[in-house]
Amino acid sequence: MIAVLCGGVGAARYLRGLLGVMPADQIVAIVNTGDDCELHGLSISPDLDTITYTLANAIDPDRGWGLRDESWRALEALRRYVHVTPAGSSAASTWFGLGDTDLATHMYRTHRLAEGATLTEVTAEIARAWQLGLTMLPMTDDSVRTRVKTLDFGEISFQEYFVRHRHGVAVESLRFDGAQTARVPSAVLAAIATADRIVIAPSNPLVSIGPLRALSALETALRDRRHDVVAISPIVGGKALKGPADRLLVELGHEATQAAIARLYAPIAATLIIDHVDLGQASSVSAAGVRPVVTSTVMSDRHIAEQLATISLSAVE
Amino acid sequence: MIAVLCGGVGAARYLRGLLGVMPADQIVAIVNTGDDCELHGLSISPDLDTITYTLANAIDPDRGWGLRDESWRALEALRRYVHVTPAGSSAASTWFGLGDTDLATHMYRTHRLAEGATLTEVTAEIARAWQLGLTMLPMTDDSVRTRVKTLDFGEISFQEYFVRHRHGVAVESLRFDGAQTARVPSAVLAAIATADRIVIAPSNPLVSIGPLRALSALETALRDRRHDVVAISPIVGGKALKGPADRLLVELGHEATQAAIARLYAPIAATLIIDHVDLGQASSVSAAGVRPVVTSTVMSDRHIAEQLATISLSAVE
Repeated sequence: MIAVLCGGVGAARYLRGLLGVMPADQIVAIVNTGDDCELHGLSISPDLDTITYTLANAIDPDRGWGLRDESWRALEALRRYVHVTPAGSSAASTWFGLGDTDLATHMYRTHRLAEGATLTEVTAEIARAWQLGLTMLPMTDDSVRTRVKTLDFGEISFQEYFVRHRHGVAVESLRFDGAQTARVPSAVLAAIATADRIVIAPSNPLVSIGPLRALSALETALRDRRHDVVAISPIVGGKALKGPADRLLVELGHEATQAAIARLYAPIAATLIIDHVDLGQASSVSAAGVRPVVTSTVMSDRHIAEQLATISLSAVE
Repeated sequence: MIAVLCGGVGAARYLRGLLGVMPADQIVAIVNTGDDCELHGLSISPDLDTITYTLANAIDPDRGWGLRDESWRALEALRRYVHVTPAGSSAASTWFGLGDTDLATHMYRTHRLAEGATLTEVTAEIARAWQLGLTMLPMTDDSVRTRVKTLDFGEISFQEYFVRHRHGVAVESLRFDGAQTARVPSAVLAAIATADRIVIAPSNPLVSIGPLRALSALETALRDRRHDVVAISPIVGGKALKGPADRLLVELGHEATQAAIARLYAPIAATLIIDHVDLGQASSVSAAGVRPVVTSTVMSDRHIAEQLATISLSAVE
C-alpha cells in the first residue's frame, strides 16, 4: 500500500500517473484541507475536489479546476445582489468560481456534514460516486484554515490570497488556524504507519503540505517513517510549474531551489525527486541530508506521470 | 399605510393587484416563514421568494414558483450522489426544486445570515435588489417551522408535505415548532398597530396564515385591530384555487366553506371578502360574526387583482 500526501493540481496529476502503474485499492491519498472554506453557506474543499474531478477525468482541462462543460448561472445571478450588499459583507462575492454542476458537490458535502457525517465519511462517498477506486482521506475532520498574512491586505483566508488576489500579493507569514487542536483521524495515522512507501506529491511544500505537517501527530508519524518517505519537488529550474510555490519560498525566507526543498523536507523525507534540469543541484540536496533522485517531473502527459510514479515507488533505497 | 398578511402565491397575486392601485411605499407585506427550510446548507424562504419573484415579474408563469428561464444543472448534478447516500440521509434529495439562478438568492440569504444579519435585514436587501418598492417583512427573525403530522409518514416538514408528497397525504395535525419562543420584530408589530387597514391575503388560513397567528404577540396585535382587518377567502365554490386549503380544512375538522373561514378568522377580522359564486354563503359568514363582502376573488388577470385590491381597501366599514 502506498500513501500519498496531497495538495491539489500537482498531486492530482501524480495520482493519475500512480493509478496507471498500480491497483487503485492499494493507494491512500491523504489530502490537505487547510484551504477549505465556507462560502454562501456551502462547505468547499478545493484540494479534495480537484483530485476527485481530475481522477474522474471530469476536470476542466483549460482552467485546471472545476468541472468541464460547466455553466455559471448561479454565480451570474448572484451579481444581482452586489449593489444591495452592505459594506463589509462578502455575501454577493463572485470571485470564487462556483460552477452550477460543481455546486452539487458542495451542496452534498454541506448537507452530509450538517447531518453529522465526518468529512472522512463524506469524502469516501464522493470518491465512490465518481468511481475513483483509491482511498481518499482528508488530513483531519476538524477545521484547519490556512491564514495568509499579507503586506497589503493584512491576514486573509487562503482562498482570498489564492483566488481573489490570484496569489499576486506579497506574503509575510502563514498560520494554520485550528491545527493545534485538530485531531488526525486514525485511518490517516494507520496509513502512514503501515504504508510500504509514502510519497509527498509535487505540491506546494508551504501551503499544501504545510497544513498536514502542522498537525503534530501527522508530522511525528512521518518522521517515524522518514526512510520510506519520498518527496517530489514542485520546483523545476527555479520555478513552480503552477501556483505560487517559487514566490512563496522566497518571500518566506527560503529559496526556490532544490536545496531549500530538501531542507524543508529533510525531517520527514529521506529521498527527494528532482527534475533533470536541476541535475546540478543534486549535490546541494545531498548536503541537506536528503538523497536526490533525478528524473522527469514535469507531468505534461500521462506517460511521464506514470514514469514519475514508477520511479517514486522504487526511489527508496 | 396598508399591512398585508401573506403566504405565497395567492398573496403575491393580491400584492401585485395592490401595487396597481396604491403607492408601493405605503404597503407593508408581513410574510409567513413557517415553511422556510434548510436544504443542502442553504436557508430557503419559499413564501418570501414567491412574492419577490412574482412582484418582480420574474416568476415562472407555468410552474408558479421559481424563476423564469431557469436551468437545473446543479440539481441534476446532485443525482450523481444518490446511490452513495447512506440510508436515512437526504443529502442528495432533488424533490425540492432548486434552480440554478434561484440558488443565488438562497446563497445570498444564507451568507448574510451567517454574517449575523437578521432575516428582516436580508429580506429588505433582496427586495431592494429586485426593486419591489414595497416593504417586505418576515413574520419573525427566529426559527418557526411548520410540522405536519401525517397518517402515513408521521410528522414531516412542511416542504416534505407540500412539495415531496405534493400535499397528497392525509394530515392529522399541524404544529408550529418554535412559535412559542419566536419574537415578533417591532417593525411587524408597529405595522399592525399603525396600518390604516390590515388585509389577510387569500392564503391558506391554516398553513400560511396559521404560523403568523401562532405568534401570540402577532395574534394579540391583530385582535386589537379586528375592526380594521379584512380577510380575503382563499376558498371559491368549496375549492382552493391552488394548494391544499380545501382538503386541509376538512381533514383538520373544519369545512371548505366560507362559514368555516369566517369562524377561523372571526377573532382577528371583522370583514371577509368572498367570491360571487359563494353569495349564498354570505349569511353564514354573518352568522359567524363577520361581515361578508362579495366580489370577484379569482385573480385570473391583473385587472381583477386590482379590482379585488380596491375593494379590500374600502371593505372596512
